[in-house]
Amino acid sequence: MIVVKVGGGAGINYDMLCEDLAMLKRGGHEIILVHGGSDETNRLSEQLGYPARFVVSTSGHTSRYTDRQTLEIFMMATGKINGLLVENLQRLGINAIGVRGLDGQLLSGKRKAVLRIIEDGKQKVLRDDWTGTIDQVNTGLITLLLKGGYLPVVAPIACSFDGEAINVDGDRAAAAIASALGANTLLLLTNVPGLLRRFPDESTLITHIERGNLDAYMEIAQGRMKKKVMGAGEALEGGVGRVILADARRESPVSAALAGQGTVIE
Amino acid sequence: MIVVKVGGGAGINYDMLCEDLAMLKRGGHEIILVHGGSDETNRLSEQLGYPARFVVSTSGHTSRYTDRQTLEIFMMATGKINGLLVENLQRLGINAIGVRGLDGQLLSGKRKAVLRIIEDGKQKVLRDDWTGTIDQVNTGLITLLLKGGYLPVVAPIACSFDGEAINVDGDRAAAAIASALGANTLLLLTNVPGLLRRFPDESTLITHIERGNLDAYMEIAQGRMKKKVMGAGEALEGGVGRVILADARRESPVSAALAGQGTVIE
Repeated sequence: MIVVKVGGGAGINYDMLCEDLAMLKRGGHEIILVHGGSDETNRLSEQLGYPARFVVSTSGHTSRYTDRQTLEIFMMATGKINGLLVENLQRLGINAIGVRGLDGQLLSGKRKAVLRIIEDGKQKVLRDDWTGTIDQVNTGLITLLLKGGYLPVVAPIACSFDGEAINVDGDRAAAAIASALGANTLLLLTNVPGLLRRFPDESTLITHIERGNLDAYMEIAQGRMKKKVMGAGEALEGGVGRVILADARRESPVSAALAGQGTVIE
Repeated sequence: MIVVKVGGGAGINYDMLCEDLAMLKRGGHEIILVHGGSDETNRLSEQLGYPARFVVSTSGHTSRYTDRQTLEIFMMATGKINGLLVENLQRLGINAIGVRGLDGQLLSGKRKAVLRIIEDGKQKVLRDDWTGTIDQVNTGLITLLLKGGYLPVVAPIACSFDGEAINVDGDRAAAAIASALGANTLLLLTNVPGLLRRFPDESTLITHIERGNLDAYMEIAQGRMKKKVMGAGEALEGGVGRVILADARRESPVSAALAGQGTVIE
């Protein structure tokens, strides 16, 4: 079983991704596709006159402040991405089915309603945050869909333990699903060739990381790549055989990653 | 089995609807909820500077012109409505799962890419329309979800026979699902008490229609109510026991309709 996460950054080509997935699915692979929503949410927020707000937590992580209005924009943006991916696969004859983590409690966890941030050098508290962690995966639901012959396309909105919709990180959602299902391989596809020693110089691609050394690479990872390296660590700890950080801007991006192109962590 | 369709018009209260559905589901009823997307799509289109365009077909029907951009706005709008309904039910302890007709080919049919319309008294042809009919229901998928204990919440985007996403009418989607599953009852909930002899005078509610006489009432139905009466006819023809047009602006809207409040067609 392969879990593939694809981002929405510039240059990523969903047509080529879906063609490759369709080919692999027809070849007998069990596949789960997980997507993000960050870039589309930024665009839509801007268009709606409610621009995204990014904050730095007291522990130094940068994240989106997801107030209720942002959560609803996130629902719209992911609704579109998910719909387009499902449509793309359906046009290729693959019976894809879109599900949010919220649906059927596919992904559930703890909501973190209060965000402690640093702004202008001062600590502040932001309330009304609709984000959280993923603590449980409803493997029964995914198995039901896979056994039915469907290809699940998962949107990163989870269900809090109180039934609330929460914005979760797509890479870590994919890692949680891969761990819970005991997937052989987790692919984290983005618009760079993998982990770069000196971002954005693509000639500095790190091709191989021993799982024991992963922590040392957290320092090298820039921006959103940090979440991917974190997700990779979680997946390996959860029993996934290997995680590959690879490029989604090319033809056959999944097959290429499976063949070892990218940063292979095992 | 009850299939409930709810619109998105002014005054409709999703909280009261979901509380009632949760109560009935806990009481052992098998329920499928279908929603619309028209009102939210109008709002979002306006906000995005791409206002909805309604056209009159040569056969006299008014409908939305769904070009590709509108289809994507429709995906976003229905993504939000669907997410909010699923969240609402999850908060009440009901394991709801959102699905578009596109997902797993739940609803499939023929795309009608070309629209013949009358504008300024002249016939015109509009291309790039992303709408269509519902000709098949994947009952296997709904049964899979119902057997799994989930409450399906269905968005009115179907899958064309070529795998394209198409905007379909929510009332007729609900009718198709109710027919295919042999539901006892189809409820079409909206922001009026039922079919009114003289719209919008609510004191002129028609409380009962014999199925054989339904055609005569098509003349009375105004605007979007026409699609509901059409959907009702299709459901009855498809073997559904009764169809009730009822009010979604009140407490316990589903229980009240089941108790016969509204326009009962049987």
